[in-house]
Order: sequence, then C-alpha cells, then structure tokens
Amino acid sequence: MTTATADEGLWSSEYVKEMVKQMRALDSYGTYDGWPNERVLAPYIVTKEQRREIPVIGDPDEVILSRVKAFYNGLAVLIEKESGLMASSVINITHEGFGRALITCGKLIVLDRTLRDVHRFGFESIGKMKDEADKLLSVALAIIGKYPEVAGL
Amino acid sequence: MTTATADEGLWSSEYVKEMVKQMRALDSYGTYDGWPNERVLAPYIVTKEQRREIPVIGDPDEVILSRVKAFYNGLAVLIEKESGLMASSVINITHEGFGRALITCGKLIVLDRTLRDVHRFGFESIGKMKDEADKLLSVALAIIGKYPEVAGL
Repeated sequence: MTTATADEGLWSSEYVKEMVKQMRALDSYGTYDGWPNERVLAPYIVTKEQRREIPVIGDPDEVILSRVKAFYNGLAVLIEKESGLMASSVINITHEGFGRALITCGKLIVLDRTLRDVHRFGFESIGKMKDEADKLLSVALAIIGKYPEVAGL
Repeated sequence: MTTATADEGLWSSEYVKEMVKQMRALDSYGTYDGWPNERVLAPYIVTKEQRREIPVIGDPDEVILSRVKAFYNGLAVLIEKESGLMASSVINITHEGFGRALITCGKLIVLDRTLRDVHRFGFESIGKMKDEADKLLSVALAIIGKYPEVAGL
C-alpha cells in the first residue's frame, strides 16, 4: 500500500471521521466551517520537539481540556457503536494537568487511564492517534465481552 | 433509646468519625483545631428553609465542591474498610452545579450518582446524612458481593 492510499483509508476510517465530528462540535462559532478535516484535527498532532517546548506548569487551559474530552468522547462513541451499549466518558483533571479518564458502560469501567502532563496531550501523527485509539478500543471491547452482564446494568 | 444515647451512637459511628476526619483533612490552616466535631460537620446541615434561600445560579464554589468530594471520599473509605478492596471516588462537576459522582472498585462502578444543584448540597441533619450514607454503602457492598471478580480487577 502506498502512503497515499494508507492516508485515504485513515481519513475515511470510522474513528477519524468521529474525531472530526467531535472537534467540529466544539466549534460553536463556526470558525472551522471552511477548514479541511486535516486542519481541524491538526491540534492533536504534537511532535516530540513540540512536546519538549510545552511547559507543564500551572493548570492546562480549557482548549486543551476540551480536546482531551473530545478524544475520550470519540472513543466512547465508537465503543457504543461496536457494543450497542451506552458508553460515557468522565474526565477528571485535578491540578497541574494530572487526572483520570474513565469510560463506563453500565457498571463496568471499560477504560481507566491516569492522565499526566495534559498540557502536552497529542500524538506524533493522526495515524499514531488512530493506532492508540484502536488499542484502547479493543481492550474496552474485550472487557465488555468478558463481563457483558455488568456492562449492561 | 433516648435522643441523647442515639446521638452518642451517631457521633461515635464509623461513618461520622470518618466524615469528621475528611473535613479536618481539608482544613490546611488549622482553623478547625479547637472546634468540636459537631461544628466541623455543621456545613453539611442544610435545612429545607436554607435550601430554598441558596441560589443555584453560576458554578458552585470550591468550598462546596470540596465538601461534596469529602462526602464521597468518606464513602469510598468505608467501602474500602468493609470490602477490603481499594475504592476511589471521581467527582465530575460540569456547569451550574450539575455533574456525576462515581465510586469505583477495580473495574466495577459501585456508586454512580447524578449530581444536581450542588450549591445546595447538604442534609436535614447529621443523622439523615448517615442514613443516606448507609443506604449508598449497602448498595455498593451488594454490587461488590455480586461481582467480586470485576471489583478485584
């Protein structure tokens, strides 16, 4: 597969389409209206060099938090689509960018992550972001498969 | 049982002792040091009349939020003591005092409550507060008893 077709697959994947939807939903003033999807998701790309330059002092701002929330909301939507069960995400950021992200289905916690340095939240590329999401998604679906009764409560 | 002995039982109960501990832990400047336990827990008492007078406009302040957190932290400590499993609470307040309180044990959600009008968080009396806590605690322990494997994950 050439990079072009791989890229095309990426941008037409359920996951990336959902993330574009999540980000566009945050855009209450229509700033993104004429933007291509690549530009809408661009804030999720944080290279290693950029990461080093972002200070992790103080509380992360609302824009970053809404991006972190959108990331987990997107995952919750996909979990919902795949499992047919309602999934909801809870993000709890305490201080200095530390916190916890949960996705729940019924009484089951299908994803539980400690968040650190939320200021630097991002991925090397959208492909890497999707890889990470795919991993989290398959773990979540596996635990639902194991405890369907708890997930259905 | 007379009211005096009922009261004594209340203030020497595991739950009320834990709540006093939670509230004293919040008191970083030692303001409560000379206070009796009754005074330390007094902010949890909100009568019907007081409730009506508290406006639910805007986001609830940090002092109320820390009280709500202490309430669920206290429950988590008791769940931990009773079940022997680590329990942790997550409070997520969105806007205008709406939100969600969760207590988790392993991958199991042992308590899940929608929070409304957090500005008015409180109880008619400490006795009523303990009744409410006892109810939540027994529901939490029942679900742990039903799904011990998930709670132990």
